[in-house]
Amino acid sequence: MTRYFTPALAHLEPYTPGEQPKIQDLIKLNTNENPYPPAPGVAAAVADAAGALRRYSDLNCTALKEALAARCGVGPQNILCGNGSDENLMLAIRAFCDAHRPLAFADVTYGFYPVWCELFGIPRHVLPLGEDFSLDPAAYCGLGETVVIANPNAPTGRWLPPSALEPVLQTNPDTVLIVDEAYIDFCDAPPAQASCVPLTKRYPNLLVVQTFSKSRSMAGARLGFCVGDAALIADLERVKYSMNPYNVNSLTQAAGVAALADGGYFAKTTAAVRETRARTAAMLEALGFTVLPSQANFLFAKTPKMGGGELYEALRARRILVRHFDAPRTRDWLRITVGTPEEMRSLEAALRAILA
Amino acid sequence: MTRYFTPALAHLEPYTPGEQPKIQDLIKLNTNENPYPPAPGVAAAVADAAGALRRYSDLNCTALKEALAARCGVGPQNILCGNGSDENLMLAIRAFCDAHRPLAFADVTYGFYPVWCELFGIPRHVLPLGEDFSLDPAAYCGLGETVVIANPNAPTGRWLPPSALEPVLQTNPDTVLIVDEAYIDFCDAPPAQASCVPLTKRYPNLLVVQTFSKSRSMAGARLGFCVGDAALIADLERVKYSMNPYNVNSLTQAAGVAALADGGYFAKTTAAVRETRARTAAMLEALGFTVLPSQANFLFAKTPKMGGGELYEALRARRILVRHFDAPRTRDWLRITVGTPEEMRSLEAALRAILA
Repeated sequence: MTRYFTPALAHLEPYTPGEQPKIQDLIKLNTNENPYPPAPGVAAAVADAAGALRRYSDLNCTALKEALAARCGVGPQNILCGNGSDENLMLAIRAFCDAHRPLAFADVTYGFYPVWCELFGIPRHVLPLGEDFSLDPAAYCGLGETVVIANPNAPTGRWLPPSALEPVLQTNPDTVLIVDEAYIDFCDAPPAQASCVPLTKRYPNLLVVQTFSKSRSMAGARLGFCVGDAALIADLERVKYSMNPYNVNSLTQAAGVAALADGGYFAKTTAAVRETRARTAAMLEALGFTVLPSQANFLFAKTPKMGGGELYEALRARRILVRHFDAPRTRDWLRITVGTPEEMRSLEAALRAILA
Repeated sequence: MTRYFTPALAHLEPYTPGEQPKIQDLIKLNTNENPYPPAPGVAAAVADAAGALRRYSDLNCTALKEALAARCGVGPQNILCGNGSDENLMLAIRAFCDAHRPLAFADVTYGFYPVWCELFGIPRHVLPLGEDFSLDPAAYCGLGETVVIANPNAPTGRWLPPSALEPVLQTNPDTVLIVDEAYIDFCDAPPAQASCVPLTKRYPNLLVVQTFSKSRSMAGARLGFCVGDAALIADLERVKYSMNPYNVNSLTQAAGVAALADGGYFAKTTAAVRETRARTAAMLEALGFTVLPSQANFLFAKTPKMGGGELYEALRARRILVRHFDAPRTRDWLRITVGTPEEMRSLEAALRAILA
C-alpha cells in the first residue's frame, strides 16, 4: 500500500477468484462455467450492437428488463440489472446494511460476502451450517439482521425449497433477506417451484439475485439481475446512480436479450448439465466419494483415500483443474464443476488412476 | 426509500446523467458522444469474443493493458482498466480519500465528483474557477488534500498544459492528484504534450484517468483506464478486488484492443472533430455567442440574446438536444457536443431561426 491509501481500508482482504490459468488442453472445472457456448443468437446480437457503440448504453437496460420481467412474471420496475451478480450483491449489501445493521450468512458459502462487509464497515454475523453442510432456516428467524443465503449454496450445492425460507422473511419484517440464486436454473424442480422469485410479490423484504454467468453461459459478459418489490429495487437504483449509472454496457445488454429469446436452447443445455451432474455424482460415489446432494452445476465431494489439497494437486498434474478451499471445514473437499460428458470421462479416468 | 434502506445513505443525491430520449430524427449533442462509429475492426472483434462468453473475462485485462501500455509508453503494471471512467474515478476517490482526507475540485466541473464524496462520506473542498472559468493551479498548491482536476475541464472545455499542473504535484507530495483526461485526445497538441501521462513516471502521486467513451467512439462499451505509478495502481486493484473483480467484460476488452489497433482511424476521426469544433466555434461567434476556448469535443457558449434554459428549449423544439446545467454560474450557458459537419449546419440553421 502507498502512503496515499486510506487507512480506513488498510485491513481489506480482497476476494480471491478461482484461477484462470493459460495451460494448454486444460480441463477447467474450477469456476462453474457452463460447458456449452451461449445461445446461437448471441454473437449476431452483439455484433449488431457494436455498430451503435458510439452512443451511451441504456442506463435503464429497458429492453433487457422487459425480457427479464416477462420471464420472471413480474414488472420491469421489479428488476435491476448489474455488471455481474457481484455488483448487484455489493449494491444490496451497501443499501441494506451498515455499522448498526449486520449481515448474517453461513460459515461455508460464497466467499465474497465477508469482503463486502469489510469494504463497507459492516459487522458480520456468521452462522455455522450443520455437520452435513445443511442450512437450518430456523437459525435465521427473528434475527433482525440483513441476511444473505445462497440457494443453491456454493460450494456445497445444497438447495432449500422457497417454502423453507418463508419463515425467515416472516420473522424478519424490518430487514431484507437476499437470496443469491446464481445456480437456481440447475435445480431439478422447474423455476416456478425452485426459485424464490414468486415470493417477491408477497414479501417486500425479499431480494432475489440471479445471473447469466452460469445457466446462460455468459460469465464473460458480466450480467446479473435482481428481482424484488419495486421500492426495494428503487433503493438499489439510488445507490447505483451514486456509484456507476452506466453499469451494464450495450453489448452485454444485447447479449442478454438474445439469450433470453432462445428458451429452447436454455432448456436443452441446462437439462444436459443436470443429466451429467447425476451421472457424475453416481460415478464419484462408485469410486468411494462422499458427494453432497447438488442442485447446482458443480459437485462438492471428498474421498477418505486422500486429502482435498493433495487430490487437487494430483488432478492439476493431469491438467484437470478443480477448486479447493483451504479452510478448516472444507479442507477435505473438492468443488468440481459439471463439464461435458467427455470432460467427466476424463475426470473419472484421472481419479481412477490417482486413487488406484 | 424503504425502511430497509440504510440511514447512512439517506442523504444521497444521485448524479443526473444527460437524457437519452427516444425522439425520431433527433440531433443529439447533449452527452459528448463521438459523431463517428468505432473503428471498423471493433464489430468483428466483438463477434469473435462472443464465442468464448461462457468463460469468465480476464480479471487482469492482460491484452488490453499491454496495448494501452504500448500506446502510453508505460508498463502494463501502470494501467488499471475499469467499467467506464466513472468506475475508475469512484475507485480512486474511495482509495485516496476518507473522512479526514477531503477531495478538492472546482465549482464548475464534472458533476459526479461530489456524488462520490457523499457516497463515501468524504468532505468536499470546492474551489471556484475564475470569472472566465479558468482554473488557477496555484489555488491547489500545498493543499494537502486529494485533488481531482478534469483537463480539459467539462463543461467548459478549457485545458491546461501538463507543466501548469506540475506545481500541484510538487507541493502536495503526500496526497494524490487525479487528472481526469476524458477529453484529452481532442487537444490540438499531440498526446505526448497534451496529456499528463508522461508525468506519471516522475510523480508517484499522479493518477491520470482516460476513457474510450469519447475519442474511441465507445461510450456504449463502458471502458476507461488509469495510468499511474505501479504502487498507486496496486492500491486501486486492492479496492477493485474487494468490490467487483470481473469489472470489464470480455466483449469490451476485445473491443478496446481492436480500437487501439487502428491508429489511423483514431487520428482521422479525432482530427475531424477538432476541425468541426473550430468551424463551429467560429460559426457561434459570428452569431454573437461568447464561446470558451475548447480542447474537448464540445463547446461551452452563451448568447446575450437569450437565457440558456430558453435556448435549450427552443433547440429541443427543433429536435436538437444540447446540455443545459441549471446552476448559478452555468445558467446562461449551453454545452454543445461537436457532431458531424451536417449536424453543425442544422444547428446553425436552427440558431439563426431562433435568434432572428
